[in-house]
Amino acid sequence: MSQPDRLWINVTLFDGQNTAAQPMAVAITNGLITRVCPMSELPVAEQAAGELIDAEGRVLTPGLVDCHTHLVFGGSRAGEFEARLEGKSYEEIARAGGGILSTVRATRAASEDELYQAALPRLEALMAEGVTTVEIKSGYGLTVEDELKMLRVARRLGRERPVRVLTTLLGAHALPPEYQDDADGYIDLVCNRMIPAAAADGLADAVDVFCEGIGFSVAQCLRVYAAAKAYGLAIKGHTEQLSNLGGSAAAARAGALSVDHIEYLDDAGVQALAEAGTVATLLPGAFYMLRETKVPPIELLRRHGVPMALATDANPGTSPIFSLRLMLNMACTLFRLTPLEALSGVTAHGARALGLQQQIGRIAPGLRADLCLWNTNNPAELAYSVGLPTLVRRVFAGQAL
Amino acid sequence: MSQPDRLWINVTLFDGQNTAAQPMAVAITNGLITRVCPMSELPVAEQAAGELIDAEGRVLTPGLVDCHTHLVFGGSRAGEFEARLEGKSYEEIARAGGGILSTVRATRAASEDELYQAALPRLEALMAEGVTTVEIKSGYGLTVEDELKMLRVARRLGRERPVRVLTTLLGAHALPPEYQDDADGYIDLVCNRMIPAAAADGLADAVDVFCEGIGFSVAQCLRVYAAAKAYGLAIKGHTEQLSNLGGSAAAARAGALSVDHIEYLDDAGVQALAEAGTVATLLPGAFYMLRETKVPPIELLRRHGVPMALATDANPGTSPIFSLRLMLNMACTLFRLTPLEALSGVTAHGARALGLQQQIGRIAPGLRADLCLWNTNNPAELAYSVGLPTLVRRVFAGQAL
Ligand SMILES: [Zn+2]
Ligand SMILES: [Zn+2]
Repeated sequence: MSQPDRLWINVTLFDGQNTAAQPMAVAITNGLITRVCPMSELPVAEQAAGELIDAEGRVLTPGLVDCHTHLVFGGSRAGEFEARLEGKSYEEIARAGGGILSTVRATRAASEDELYQAALPRLEALMAEGVTTVEIKSGYGLTVEDELKMLRVARRLGRERPVRVLTTLLGAHALPPEYQDDADGYIDLVCNRMIPAAAADGLADAVDVFCEGIGFSVAQCLRVYAAAKAYGLAIKGHTEQLSNLGGSAAAARAGALSVDHIEYLDDAGVQALAEAGTVATLLPGAFYMLRETKVPPIELLRRHGVPMALATDANPGTSPIFSLRLMLNMACTLFRLTPLEALSGVTAHGARALGLQQQIGRIAPGLRADLCLWNTNNPAELAYSVGLPTLVRRVFAGQAL
Repeated sequence: MSQPDRLWINVTLFDGQNTAAQPMAVAITNGLITRVCPMSELPVAEQAAGELIDAEGRVLTPGLVDCHTHLVFGGSRAGEFEARLEGKSYEEIARAGGGILSTVRATRAASEDELYQAALPRLEALMAEGVTTVEIKSGYGLTVEDELKMLRVARRLGRERPVRVLTTLLGAHALPPEYQDDADGYIDLVCNRMIPAAAADGLADAVDVFCEGIGFSVAQCLRVYAAAKAYGLAIKGHTEQLSNLGGSAAAARAGALSVDHIEYLDDAGVQALAEAGTVATLLPGAFYMLRETKVPPIELLRRHGVPMALATDANPGTSPIFSLRLMLNMACTLFRLTPLEALSGVTAHGARALGLQQQIGRIAPGLRADLCLWNTNNPAELAYSVGLPTLVRRVFAGQAL
């Protein structure tokens, strides 16, 4: 092999799964990782490079993956947050036009460019903390046109910023007022109009549903999954967040990449995930903001070897948190993950939750050179501490950006 | 009055206590706020300025005050955090040299410059989020020389960065190994040697104690307070964090500026604070990291009109959180403060907890021009959202820095 474009030396390597026991070297050529080896085994021919970066023992991780967000939305729910803390009841807030439907109204009323401008600082906040891949869901339009509008905004974010954006159609997020007593009719719209339209325009990488008593039934979700698969789209689920409907197991059997939230997941559900190879995505930000007490079944997931991803669920209602770094700490503090489990959740397992495990999420030959260099020599610091250590360098597709 | 140095116009003003109902103007001359008035009442003679800044409706707040931190320390406890999550017991961790005494060992072993270099990124993380005043405690030296060393580092931080640093001698933080069976003997050292030495060198603005079953008794704390007052130093207390010893009431009666933590504070304690004018400082970061369930008596504090300050308690053991912004959200989410109460906690009431209410913490004529301009038009956004809105401009003593 010849001289690489870039060579990182003296790296403390967290490769997405493990921390290397000795100083490592990582070589990059044409935006791909071409070699990962101990310093002592670096071939002489590769010891020079277009750019040589001495990490001096600092931690290098894969670029972070936020595999579950709702970054595109109109309006703000800060007023509702304030009203609740001032003692207003849920009924008063709903009567004043609050709740998810206020976000739907504001999102429908916003132009595509307004939604883009509003989403940009949210995306940039994530990127500033090392995120190089982010999934963005629709779900506040709830009409064919408004859902497609949201997905176009998400695609544009990925074109105009150095970050990889995966898009997910979440038409079955909530029942729009137009279908108040006709959930099945709305699911018809999602299956027969939204999914085909999103697929035709190449706007969705996956399709998601909210499977819950206050969302959609397992049977309705299975209809959405069948439609998505007919159009070659991946599937995901918001499942077992507030109760146990068996939505996770149903999603896993339908071939879901991930099931997300899963506080109420039981043993049978965990087994179904293990059998299907479905990722369990943990969203401690929503757990924290909703002051939930039921913790996801972490020990069961470990025992069955289910990969655990970790994401912000960034959204205006239940997790207005634009920090994946904070999720590392919350996963440890609230869900008792180890720091390395949490780090795998935002790298290797986050990538798997998006079906991208062959391209990103690990530092290994052949994968994209999405990398973060941190001002610490201990990967656990990233989960232990909030606000520190600082991100020294963020590399997207081989470019420091 | 003549033309000011700087004039902010079209400001959505949170002045430290309230949000103005109409667009406001704020004039600054010689580092002081010289006028605060509605746009419509701005005198013609003052409508020009050396620099005119149109806030376009954005929120202007006082510079943030973090009135309780332990930013200066040696070593890291990330390994201990990881060990605990990997299932090691407290006994195993203690046997392996963990706990507060590991920080004491590392702090004693560190040179003054090493402590300074380690503290700098912690301070800069706070400053990047708008902090213009920060209190820093000693308490990991636990010898006369090492406590003074910590205080000198804190003073140096304030000299070398555009931020106001208040220093607090916390000699009575933990019992050092040298005094294992002689807490009263150690309190003698604090009273007869540490306090006089810190006062002689002008190194401490206040003296603090850890009043707790695993800390020091109320009687011991009162001895420390008496010594501090004899040297003209202000007093503060870590009180009622893990149990109710009556330390807050005792501190209030002794004239404490603030009592901090106070999860277990009872009605009599709250009344004592109200009578003495002592500030109640809330530290939700430690509450969160320790997974406490007993919430401070917020409603009682409100009813008695006790000012509530809010701080990070940034420290390596129980709150490795270098983000005062996150405390705004945690105070609302975990302690049910309103957004405006939380904002007052890091401005007007934070200043009062440091005895600086005549100088900082509010936007009012005669006070220092420590200001933050935020990329939002709603102050509640600062507590609702994590990671956003961004800080557009941070002004320290009239200078944008
Ligand atoms: Zn979600
Ligand atoms: Zn403290």
